[in-house]
Amino acid sequence: MYTVGVRDHLMIAHSFRGEVFGPAQRLHGATYVVDVELERPELDEDGIVVDIGRAGAALREILAGPNYHNLDEEPAFAGRNTTTEFLAKVVFDRMADRIRNGELGEGAHGLTRMRVVLHESHVAWAAYHGELASDSDHR
Amino acid sequence: MYTVGVRDHLMIAHSFRGEVFGPAQRLHGATYVVDVELERPELDEDGIVVDIGRAGAALREILAGPNYHNLDEEPAFAGRNTTTEFLAKVVFDRMADRIRNGELGEGAHGLTRMRVVLHESHVAWAAYHGELASDSDHR
Amino acid sequence: MYTVGVRDHLMIAHSFRGEVFGPAQRLHGATYVVDVELERPELDEDGIVVDIGRAGAALREILAGPNYHNLDEEPAFAGRNTTTEFLAKVVFDRMADRIRNGELGEGAHGLTRMRVVLHESHVAWAAYHGELASDSDHR
Amino acid sequence: MYTVGVRDHLMIAHSFRGEVFGPAQRLHGATYVVDVELERPELDEDGIVVDIGRAGAALREILAGPNYHNLDEEPAFAGRNTTTEFLAKVVFDRMADRIRNGELGEGAHGLTRMRVVLHESHVAWAAYHGELASDSDHR
Amino acid sequence: MYTVGVRDHLMIAHSFRGEVFGPAQRLHGATYVVDVELERPELDEDGIVVDIGRAGAALREILAGPNYHNLDEEPAFAGRNTTTEFLAKVVFDRMADRIRNGELGEGAHGLTRMRVVLHESHVAWAAYHGELASDSDHR
Amino acid sequence: MYTVGVRDHLMIAHSFRGEVFGPAQRLHGATYVVDVELERPELDEDGIVVDIGRAGAALREILAGPNYHNLDEEPAFAGRNTTTEFLAKVVFDRMADRIRNGELGEGAHGLTRMRVVLHESHVAWAAYHGELASDSDHR
Repeated sequence: MYTVGVRDHLMIAHSFRGEVFGPAQRLHGATYVVDVELERPELDEDGIVVDIGRAGAALREILAGPNYHNLDEEPAFAGRNTTTEFLAKVVFDRMADRIRNGELGEGAHGLTRMRVVLHESHVAWAAYHGELASDSDHR
Repeated sequence: MYTVGVRDHLMIAHSFRGEVFGPAQRLHGATYVVDVELERPELDEDGIVVDIGRAGAALREILAGPNYHNLDEEPAFAGRNTTTEFLAKVVFDRMADRIRNGELGEGAHGLTRMRVVLHESHVAWAAYHGELASDSDHR
Repeated sequence: MYTVGVRDHLMIAHSFRGEVFGPAQRLHGATYVVDVELERPELDEDGIVVDIGRAGAALREILAGPNYHNLDEEPAFAGRNTTTEFLAKVVFDRMADRIRNGELGEGAHGLTRMRVVLHESHVAWAAYHGELASDSDHR
Repeated sequence: MYTVGVRDHLMIAHSFRGEVFGPAQRLHGATYVVDVELERPELDEDGIVVDIGRAGAALREILAGPNYHNLDEEPAFAGRNTTTEFLAKVVFDRMADRIRNGELGEGAHGLTRMRVVLHESHVAWAAYHGELASDSDHR
Repeated sequence: MYTVGVRDHLMIAHSFRGEVFGPAQRLHGATYVVDVELERPELDEDGIVVDIGRAGAALREILAGPNYHNLDEEPAFAGRNTTTEFLAKVVFDRMADRIRNGELGEGAHGLTRMRVVLHESHVAWAAYHGELASDSDHR
Repeated sequence: MYTVGVRDHLMIAHSFRGEVFGPAQRLHGATYVVDVELERPELDEDGIVVDIGRAGAALREILAGPNYHNLDEEPAFAGRNTTTEFLAKVVFDRMADRIRNGELGEGAHGLTRMRVVLHESHVAWAAYHGELASDSDHR
């Protein structure tokens, strides 16, 4: 199984609701260094998993949405705690959409799995990984 | 599948028995930078995998046991080579015990897998990963 | 010249005023991974630059102040852009105060220089470094 | 499941054929920081996954082959794009051969999986992972 | 003294002449992860050392020149060994030119020092640092 | 001013005397990831600061001395606390000796400064830097 990975980052403000969050219930913020890893059983005829330039551009566009925003005011996240693990899934879903829509090229339909890791500091991170719908599934 | 990870560290002395260890048969030591990753299929109602504050505190307490010790003199490790991979399993087991005992909160019973990585230098590391007993299993 | 360094981190929200900041004029946030390096020409009789435990504790207390806060609402920063370089100086000054007040121990009066680095992502950081008032200066 | 990992590196020149590669169609080069992770369900009687000294030596020898070469002129890669993901598989296959040939010691026959990661910059990497033929398979 | 730093990277092919280089006399290549640090005694009225967006853009443009090239064929480097330390100076000089030309904004004329680090692997790097001509010097 | 840097590591056991060390008064150990940086105002005719291969080999030999040892039993360190900062100076002095003795080549006599950093964990490090005796000084 082959993997390629790309890294970018995101800087946001937010607050959490729930006693479990302690002082993080206050409005604060985070830098997330975001890794996206894409898997595929075989390389395509160019010898690649996916066009890494397009993968990086897609990630940059996805992060540009929430970047430099207060997530507490984003309608898409209303009523949700935008925890690191929650945001990993948001990036996963938005990246999966772009793959399905062909933005990473036709070859990207061969991708079978994705893992998204958000590093929030030198001592904490969260991730989401899962299957990508097969080519036939999403037709 | 969601993951959260926390990092801490540990400084110990030890020696190894067996020709395969070469000069590491002498009494020496190591810093282990320890990563614990916890997995769970769904987030809880707070939007988290587990209370990361409690997870970090549990890890710190686990590492406080052997920290600044000569492992050759620890009864728990008598007759064993305390290799990096062996110690990864020790941290795994002790963390699993604390999860079962509820020290990471009730929500932690939803955790399904754990991975523990011990980085012993910039060029070497070892890990142990495995399933966590399901909530029903340990009742 | 001897140096010791310790690392901790800080998560805050803030916004900037000024066209130069572009989208960062919006309320957003950051994780700062904070390195403090302390210099001294000679080691003390224990063979150390400074009690690294106390240095780490002092840094943790300094960061606990702004940690999980919206810096736009901090009176201490009113009318200022809390840029990464500005915050590096804030940490420098607060650490210098604690050194002068003896919180790092008497031996810390021998420290001659400090450097504070705030890493805001994997591709950007800022720092402040300067002399520490000599022991005789601040009496 | 236990893992051990070792790191080394490799510096090569190459070019790619195919429009997808854009400017990387020109002759250029890369440093690959190479991680090899080896898995095994149980430790051997020495308490190890594999002799990490031998694993590191095998990796160094494998990398010495292409190191400081122009891969465009290597007969073994004729007609292939030596992408990061392709090279991850090359290292995987060559390491698997050495494991089968006993170069990592008899104990290495208990290894069940391997993962090879090639970091090509601070923002991009590729990997290959797969099963290792069991001891009985390759006899 | 304040510093800001930005990071980018560069992938090139080259060869060296001279016995001291051993196997690196062959055509090979490297990824250089490039850090540029800019110093200034006081912050400007916006509270910054320099417009970090412009600094990053200038660095990206400088690296775009040699990126994905065989440096042996670059007229600018004819007759020179393009070692890591040599290239650190090249980046320094080109960045200094852009600062003098006002590409980082008028405020950048207050910069007094620059340090450029090129990381060529996880175990080797080189750097060049020096004074920047003062504002009055270059008029 | 040009710099080159090389990295290696060292694993030792030791204990400290003095209340300031708290639990580190017990026999424990550490991995030190060791960086050596060498400075020189101008490059030599090969375009290098120093033969990085020889510099790395010299560092490896220096670290081989204490590597996998209990420093409490080393006569060279009798009566001294082998703190991270103390050991940084030991590496500095031993490297300086080798430079003076010509082990890094004749060109190394042009080196003017050295910095040695020992990383003891992901959150703590120590360093020693100083001038190197000029070529004429040590004749």
